[in-house]
Amino acid sequence: MAATVSLNATQQQELDDQAQETFQTKRATVANLEEILYKPLPVLDHGFVRVVDYMGDDSAIVQSARVSYGKGTKKVTEDRGLINYLMRHWHTTPFEMCEIKFHIKLPIFVARQWIRHRTANVNEYSARYSILDKEFYLPKLEHLAAQSTINNQGRGEVLEGKYAQEVLELLKRDSMQTYDTYEYLLNSNGDESRPGLARELARMNLPVNYYTQWYWKIDLHNLMHFLRLRADAHAQYEIQAYADVMIDVLKRWVPFAYDAFMDYRVGAATFSSKMLSVLKRRLSGELVTKENSGLTAREWGEMEKTLEG
Amino acid sequence: MAATVSLNATQQQELDDQAQETFQTKRATVANLEEILYKPLPVLDHGFVRVVDYMGDDSAIVQSARVSYGKGTKKVTEDRGLINYLMRHWHTTPFEMCEIKFHIKLPIFVARQWIRHRTANVNEYSARYSILDKEFYLPKLEHLAAQSTINNQGRGEVLEGKYAQEVLELLKRDSMQTYDTYEYLLNSNGDESRPGLARELARMNLPVNYYTQWYWKIDLHNLMHFLRLRADAHAQYEIQAYADVMIDVLKRWVPFAYDAFMDYRVGAATFSSKMLSVLKRRLSGELVTKENSGLTAREWGEMEKTLEG
Amino acid sequence: MAATVSLNATQQQELDDQAQETFQTKRATVANLEEILYKPLPVLDHGFVRVVDYMGDDSAIVQSARVSYGKGTKKVTEDRGLINYLMRHWHTTPFEMCEIKFHIKLPIFVARQWIRHRTANVNEYSARYSILDKEFYLPKLEHLAAQSTINNQGRGEVLEGKYAQEVLELLKRDSMQTYDTYEYLLNSNGDESRPGLARELARMNLPVNYYTQWYWKIDLHNLMHFLRLRADAHAQYEIQAYADVMIDVLKRWVPFAYDAFMDYRVGAATFSSKMLSVLKRRLSGELVTKENSGLTAREWGEMEKTLEG
Amino acid sequence: MAATVSLNATQQQELDDQAQETFQTKRATVANLEEILYKPLPVLDHGFVRVVDYMGDDSAIVQSARVSYGKGTKKVTEDRGLINYLMRHWHTTPFEMCEIKFHIKLPIFVARQWIRHRTANVNEYSARYSILDKEFYLPKLEHLAAQSTINNQGRGEVLEGKYAQEVLELLKRDSMQTYDTYEYLLNSNGDESRPGLARELARMNLPVNYYTQWYWKIDLHNLMHFLRLRADAHAQYEIQAYADVMIDVLKRWVPFAYDAFMDYRVGAATFSSKMLSVLKRRLSGELVTKENSGLTAREWGEMEKTLEG
Repeated sequence: MAATVSLNATQQQELDDQAQETFQTKRATVANLEEILYKPLPVLDHGFVRVVDYMGDDSAIVQSARVSYGKGTKKVTEDRGLINYLMRHWHTTPFEMCEIKFHIKLPIFVARQWIRHRTANVNEYSARYSILDKEFYLPKLEHLAAQSTINNQGRGEVLEGKYAQEVLELLKRDSMQTYDTYEYLLNSNGDESRPGLARELARMNLPVNYYTQWYWKIDLHNLMHFLRLRADAHAQYEIQAYADVMIDVLKRWVPFAYDAFMDYRVGAATFSSKMLSVLKRRLSGELVTKENSGLTAREWGEMEKTLEG
Repeated sequence: MAATVSLNATQQQELDDQAQETFQTKRATVANLEEILYKPLPVLDHGFVRVVDYMGDDSAIVQSARVSYGKGTKKVTEDRGLINYLMRHWHTTPFEMCEIKFHIKLPIFVARQWIRHRTANVNEYSARYSILDKEFYLPKLEHLAAQSTINNQGRGEVLEGKYAQEVLELLKRDSMQTYDTYEYLLNSNGDESRPGLARELARMNLPVNYYTQWYWKIDLHNLMHFLRLRADAHAQYEIQAYADVMIDVLKRWVPFAYDAFMDYRVGAATFSSKMLSVLKRRLSGELVTKENSGLTAREWGEMEKTLEG
Repeated sequence: MAATVSLNATQQQELDDQAQETFQTKRATVANLEEILYKPLPVLDHGFVRVVDYMGDDSAIVQSARVSYGKGTKKVTEDRGLINYLMRHWHTTPFEMCEIKFHIKLPIFVARQWIRHRTANVNEYSARYSILDKEFYLPKLEHLAAQSTINNQGRGEVLEGKYAQEVLELLKRDSMQTYDTYEYLLNSNGDESRPGLARELARMNLPVNYYTQWYWKIDLHNLMHFLRLRADAHAQYEIQAYADVMIDVLKRWVPFAYDAFMDYRVGAATFSSKMLSVLKRRLSGELVTKENSGLTAREWGEMEKTLEG
Repeated sequence: MAATVSLNATQQQELDDQAQETFQTKRATVANLEEILYKPLPVLDHGFVRVVDYMGDDSAIVQSARVSYGKGTKKVTEDRGLINYLMRHWHTTPFEMCEIKFHIKLPIFVARQWIRHRTANVNEYSARYSILDKEFYLPKLEHLAAQSTINNQGRGEVLEGKYAQEVLELLKRDSMQTYDTYEYLLNSNGDESRPGLARELARMNLPVNYYTQWYWKIDLHNLMHFLRLRADAHAQYEIQAYADVMIDVLKRWVPFAYDAFMDYRVGAATFSSKMLSVLKRRLSGELVTKENSGLTAREWGEMEKTLEG
């Protein structure tokens, strides 16, 4: 993520103006998160994640779990212990009591995966109403990979130099040409001999690597659920890149919940009933083989990988 | 709302402690709402509504509608105009970008109506885990009404003095007795000759006029939807009492959205296709009667009421 | 809808096989809907809507409204009256007791509008896992319209002949070329000198007029909410085309609910508090003008349109 | 579940009438589930669960996972394998493509726990509109347990004979008396000297062990989530009793999904990142103790229990 986010002068001015104002509040406030409030954190070649607002902190989780009249916190160690307990035992409602709002810029094909999480509030930039910028995603060379030969839904080897360059050039060529057509259809030059096509129609010519943007607001429980799935190695790299940045935000915002999340979710593993009985046999000293395990070859492989990984 | 909220010393202390702390924030802040933050607003005889946290203000609606890099606001009149437009045309997502969190104390039968709104986050005080206080709802005399004779789901005449007193005494007697039994079952006195019944079982003896409490968090769009239905004359009086207090909170929090809400939702009326054609006939000077209107008697009555009311 | 749906031989065979089997059931069954079960109803140039399954009928609405031990229906006129009443007074839960499942083929830009309705279950064809067909949407000439000059989010005049042809040719050219690149990137020909790019990457070159498909399941209440918004004249034509076909499905499935929906939703109009007072003044014989109405110019215009329309 | 469900003559007649009708359908149909369609399955002393309708079967999961034009099924072993794979890897959307509708009778305190699952459709019997029957829950002697001394939210020892009888008699006495008051308030005898109190007010006198009933509709994914939490040993016994009966329904309805559910959810265990590293150390032959495990005492205890259980 070497890239820095390119904003035009107006956008930069608006950002700066908002970031300078300071107010007095009695609400729960997180100094570490205030530090990056409004700042665009770069993702991919033109995207970003920007925290626009938040509600609550680690204490707010404890406060609502205790249905408290005050802050609800006791000793720091007790609060941390309670948060760990709630996470371990899948108590979700206290984590729903924190909320965060992002402004996100992302390629359309990433947006299409993202939107499948229905528990967030979304307001997207409308290409019926406005004109999309000439910004499209091109992968870095190290992310241009061949189709996996063992996983229908994944990447294999990274492409080699010259061919990789050709791939990038083709992607770029088509992205440029489709945008030229888009501008021609819109009649961006104001050629008086013809009308501009309706924006809602012209945009249909743009590929899904074009960037869109939206405001996206979600509670802490559902954010962690999203991050667990999208920071996972099975997710497409391009959405992982966003999830990784947002996990850093999580750490600033609610450090106790972050620790519990890393331990009980991200780094955790679930064993099926059959896997559990293999585990018990092995722990009692028995030599269990793929053949006498009662697992399918696929399950055996997944279990082995978890216990090595 | 003559009542004041009775808190015990610990609760009052916790409240006061939290209300005194002040922080610096760059987030959107609403001075009018900060004034009542954490303060319990009394409802019914023992209930309250307390704003615990909030996210966003009128500007945040405009900001997300414009997918803005800054505050998103222009002139005050333009912002107000946009909010009116969004409300009138049922654009819901910008209103979802504000969020509010309440601590609410309410009778169980009110909680049971309330919870039917599924779009909020809720964390309720657990009677499996904790012991319920001896607090139950008794209506004021002016709210003790007979069953309506024309509406299966409503109240008719207010009960008269002596009989009303008897009703109250019966309600009180049973509330007191069931709580005595509850305490006996729990073995609150610590009688060593017998164990206390499990809390999760003992609580089954308490009537639904007993108070419970919860943290309840919702976005502005869904809050307004809730308030429209529950501040309505068809809602049970006891839940209306809560909705009325929360509408005052709405006014403090987002005054532009509040105005739009009152004009385009609370005070608005919907006419069916058939009613609309009756309207047009009447406006063109035709004398339309119930008989030649094409409406059912019930529809005719509802339309008349709307046009008089 | 002149178009017929083009399926390949395997797809057609699968469809036919499923449509031929018949089973005995005690469940509520709708003969009119069974007639078109599994059949693709054409929409746009390559799209379709196909009912794959359904639960409930008009009686099921009544049954759950009455929390009945049997069918719950009484006289036909009473059932119809109850459904009208429930619709008029915004009782939503009985309508949620019916469910329908569709298989839908639609352009990506339509899918992106569609998915904003979060209350449905969706399973989409995965372009990470599978290869998209060479099928893209091209508007008919009569739907190629200029940008509206009065509505930022709408269409104006239909384009004239020769220029319209040019627009179509440009759209077609880019759609063809981007697909050629897609196939080259995938190495569809199996050229052994180079690997195929991962599917999840190659697909980023395709424009949003390419078709995708999904299974989409929703309850009757939320379906009607979707149809009200998407069959509306303010919705983009291409999604209206789907909504129109689905309204015909609604009519076959739940004819009483359909009638109530058309009367109390589709053909209905909502007047704000201020509009309502204008109405009352006019009905009492007063001549109300834009100037003395208390409405903004925009509101006045919208009200006039409703009362003429 | 020795109890049989007591229905009045009208209810029984309605049930029988509906159960006798048979229709032809092309929809996916499950013979094993048709057998118990409409039949009340007894739970607790007066409750029941009754399947009123369903959509889909095991094949429907496969069909939507493959976004198929036909049934989508291949060989039985492949279908089962796919369902296992989807369950193991937390693919939820294909399971959302099946739906089931229940009519359930349950004590109010159970209904209050149940309704916290927000992903279902619910239509409850209205005590504002109708009069509740004189039916309340009394635990069997073997379920009357003392408060747990080690778990704030649980039951300990079963109460002994004589004292248990006293508890039951107190519960019964209060249930009877509050209902007598309810009837008096409603003026069920039609005493002409006084009006009946509004139903919505009179019902506030009834304890939460009184039975209510509702129609409850949910998709298969969310049903399994509900059952996993509510059939769990940490759930209150009274709601477990319902979950157990519904798991039997699940087995009839979707036997492949049921098997996957039992293996990958109900019988499965999740180990945190730290627990996982303890596991690896133990499997490599190291003797790990509570002290050198890096786990808290509570975590260590929970892990031990899982590996013994």
